[in-house]
Amino acid sequence: MPDSSPPNPTLDVAFVAGIRRLLEEGRREELARRLDNLHPSDVADLLGDFSTDEKVALFSLLEADDAADVLVETDAETREDIIESVQPEKLRTALAQLEPDEAADVIGELEPREAAKALAGLEDRDEIKRLLEYPPDTAGGLMTTEFVVLPANITCREAVDRASGASETTHRNYLYIIDEASRPIGRLPIERLIFSSPDTPVGTVMETDLHAVPTDMDREQVAEVVRRYDLLSVPAVDPATGAVQGIITIDDVLDAADEEAAEDMYRMAGTAARDPLHMSIGRRAIARLPWLLITLAPGFLVGQIMRWLGYDPGGTTALLLFVPVMIEMAGNVSLQSSTVMVRGLAMGDVRLGRAGSVLANEIGVAVLVGLVCGLVSGLVGYVFFGHDIGFAVVVAFSMLCGILSAAVTGTVIPLACNRVGVDPALASGPFVTSLNDITGTLIYLGLGARLLHLFG
Amino acid sequence: MPDSSPPNPTLDVAFVAGIRRLLEEGRREELARRLDNLHPSDVADLLGDFSTDEKVALFSLLEADDAADVLVETDAETREDIIESVQPEKLRTALAQLEPDEAADVIGELEPREAAKALAGLEDRDEIKRLLEYPPDTAGGLMTTEFVVLPANITCREAVDRASGASETTHRNYLYIIDEASRPIGRLPIERLIFSSPDTPVGTVMETDLHAVPTDMDREQVAEVVRRYDLLSVPAVDPATGAVQGIITIDDVLDAADEEAAEDMYRMAGTAARDPLHMSIGRRAIARLPWLLITLAPGFLVGQIMRWLGYDPGGTTALLLFVPVMIEMAGNVSLQSSTVMVRGLAMGDVRLGRAGSVLANEIGVAVLVGLVCGLVSGLVGYVFFGHDIGFAVVVAFSMLCGILSAAVTGTVIPLACNRVGVDPALASGPFVTSLNDITGTLIYLGLGARLLHLFG
Repeated sequence: MPDSSPPNPTLDVAFVAGIRRLLEEGRREELARRLDNLHPSDVADLLGDFSTDEKVALFSLLEADDAADVLVETDAETREDIIESVQPEKLRTALAQLEPDEAADVIGELEPREAAKALAGLEDRDEIKRLLEYPPDTAGGLMTTEFVVLPANITCREAVDRASGASETTHRNYLYIIDEASRPIGRLPIERLIFSSPDTPVGTVMETDLHAVPTDMDREQVAEVVRRYDLLSVPAVDPATGAVQGIITIDDVLDAADEEAAEDMYRMAGTAARDPLHMSIGRRAIARLPWLLITLAPGFLVGQIMRWLGYDPGGTTALLLFVPVMIEMAGNVSLQSSTVMVRGLAMGDVRLGRAGSVLANEIGVAVLVGLVCGLVSGLVGYVFFGHDIGFAVVVAFSMLCGILSAAVTGTVIPLACNRVGVDPALASGPFVTSLNDITGTLIYLGLGARLLHLFG
Repeated sequence: MPDSSPPNPTLDVAFVAGIRRLLEEGRREELARRLDNLHPSDVADLLGDFSTDEKVALFSLLEADDAADVLVETDAETREDIIESVQPEKLRTALAQLEPDEAADVIGELEPREAAKALAGLEDRDEIKRLLEYPPDTAGGLMTTEFVVLPANITCREAVDRASGASETTHRNYLYIIDEASRPIGRLPIERLIFSSPDTPVGTVMETDLHAVPTDMDREQVAEVVRRYDLLSVPAVDPATGAVQGIITIDDVLDAADEEAAEDMYRMAGTAARDPLHMSIGRRAIARLPWLLITLAPGFLVGQIMRWLGYDPGGTTALLLFVPVMIEMAGNVSLQSSTVMVRGLAMGDVRLGRAGSVLANEIGVAVLVGLVCGLVSGLVGYVFFGHDIGFAVVVAFSMLCGILSAAVTGTVIPLACNRVGVDPALASGPFVTSLNDITGTLIYLGLGARLLHLFG
């Protein structure tokens, strides 16, 4: 089945244009009304289309509980923009609406100074600080502390009373039964309370296949536990004492599993592991450059080894010694671009209405990356080939052009596949990747031969 | 955080060896007892370590409800093995325990003849057949039909009665409220029934943000809806009438999201999109070869274009014309191997206790793939270079060795990373991939120069 834009028909180009117009005309009431009709997740998505000032203006129109949910759902860059610029009072009322674990997730991604500002004046400050001590990619970082624990000897009737007394944000699909040392010993799906006799002790109707996880377990393993045993939540326990610290719910696991899969893909492609689409061009180039630069070293080494092995072409043909490094660069650059596109399309972060700006940004990144790698290649070419400036310039310029071509094809082909209803993942398959590499290489060799001719 | 083996301590090497010993000694009762202590997901995982006959023997020892759950959780290959060989009676009693949608999932992956055999005599046969008509990667393929619908005007007390009258396998986290045309209009989280007055009509306490999805929606989009709106389930409706056909629960979405992410990764690497670790060596080679063979064509074309551009080295140096295709092949082969490893490790399908046999299998696949690609390369080399048999043999043999080296490094490096606690995804990053490509290329060039010297 083809991938296509996410099922989010409200956020089409016309809708975004309408919001922009209302914003320009300063029609705050109409704006507030429209935003109020959207799900907070959709508002979070929408904010990605606007500038920092506009984001803050829109965010300020939200009611406190919506504003809180938008903060949780939005991407890191938008969140930072908002927290830096919004009125402290607005921020505080929004954060106060959140469960402590959600607040910790939001605050955990901020710079220390911003985090301190956000924490100030919050009622749950100590709880949030405690949660912030768990690394975000562990069970402790995933867990919520809003859940119901019961001793085994109380009756189902008492359990209903306790569950109904809990705050509205408390997760009540499972109630957890603990022993005297706060260790979880069982779980009570809430519907059992309805179908059990009120006087039954909860200990006799609870389920005991808990699969508790220690708070320091990696979240990828937590996801594996939840998936393997088809659970709606698992208790997270202190690794030393076994006492329950929180619960991890399946919706957070679903988000975490997607983030992990994306991180794996981005890592394999050698680019920023989080949210590359929402970073500035400069930061994206900086995230990708290390991987490309360390690819240059073995690439040039192979050129040198080729000479040692007795492959020593002269003249124009000397450009052949840099073909391996050119192919590697083209391959890596196009893989980086296409991975960002494929994952962005699959996750709904790239919508076709934004394809133009997405492409423009990728070209911007490619120009920066290509300039740096071209410069380094020229320098190496100069050192390799008897300090011949002409040869060095040809190598540098040809490599820049080859890299640009690879970035453009790596971005355009997944977008084109998506538009015609072919799975963009196939666009990053070996055939297309090979074509990209080879286009880059031929541009390098063709341009190089032409230029050397000019210089010679 | 490093990935490591899944949290599944029971299934260690000693445990598997113990099961094997009991099986050889024919101690059926002790075996049945041990299997009974395992979660069906763990039994499904365990079966992967045994031969077809042993799988069937172990499966036959399971009680009917465990057997059913094992069938749902096991990989496609094991499932086929079991259904082909197990006694029809045993199969029927197991399938009869399943919800219709689970039975449809199991039966949908079978050959038509096996599927007919499995369907025969099942009580829910017609329901399962209806579900089988939905493609597995759509909302219809994901949905279950065991859920509770209520008209809006009944009271909460009646709703409790209806929910408690439903079968035990029915999903009751949300009860769905429908209109006269069976269109879903609201949802009642079951805990609301506990906290609402018994005489309230359900229509006044229901939630209305349903986010129903049409049955023909792609499952990747369904996952996006569930994730975006943090739902425990969504109703799937007929695209024409809007009548509710089933519900999709978040645990199935989590499984589907993981499968989709894995499929994307496998597709990007150009290998089988499903379950490559559980396929035979021959079938894995066949799944990968098309992608590699269509890479050869542009690779050789670039060699020809290099000659047209005026790059025409002679003698040993002629091997340089095949460097682009060698790099592409090495890159693709090592990417295929490392992707299977990275995803297998992340999903818990590759356990370190099995690393030896995993590596042996990958080498087997690489030998097959290398032989075919080497042969094709030799033929092309023969045609390219004035029908020189010596040159053709050198190209063929060097390419085979280069491909083997790429496959081995692509497999070993992720396994080694995993063992020392480094995220294996990093092992498939550009630097390691480049090293793999370059090792393959140098083996090709070094061996080629040496061999051409012998022939000359």
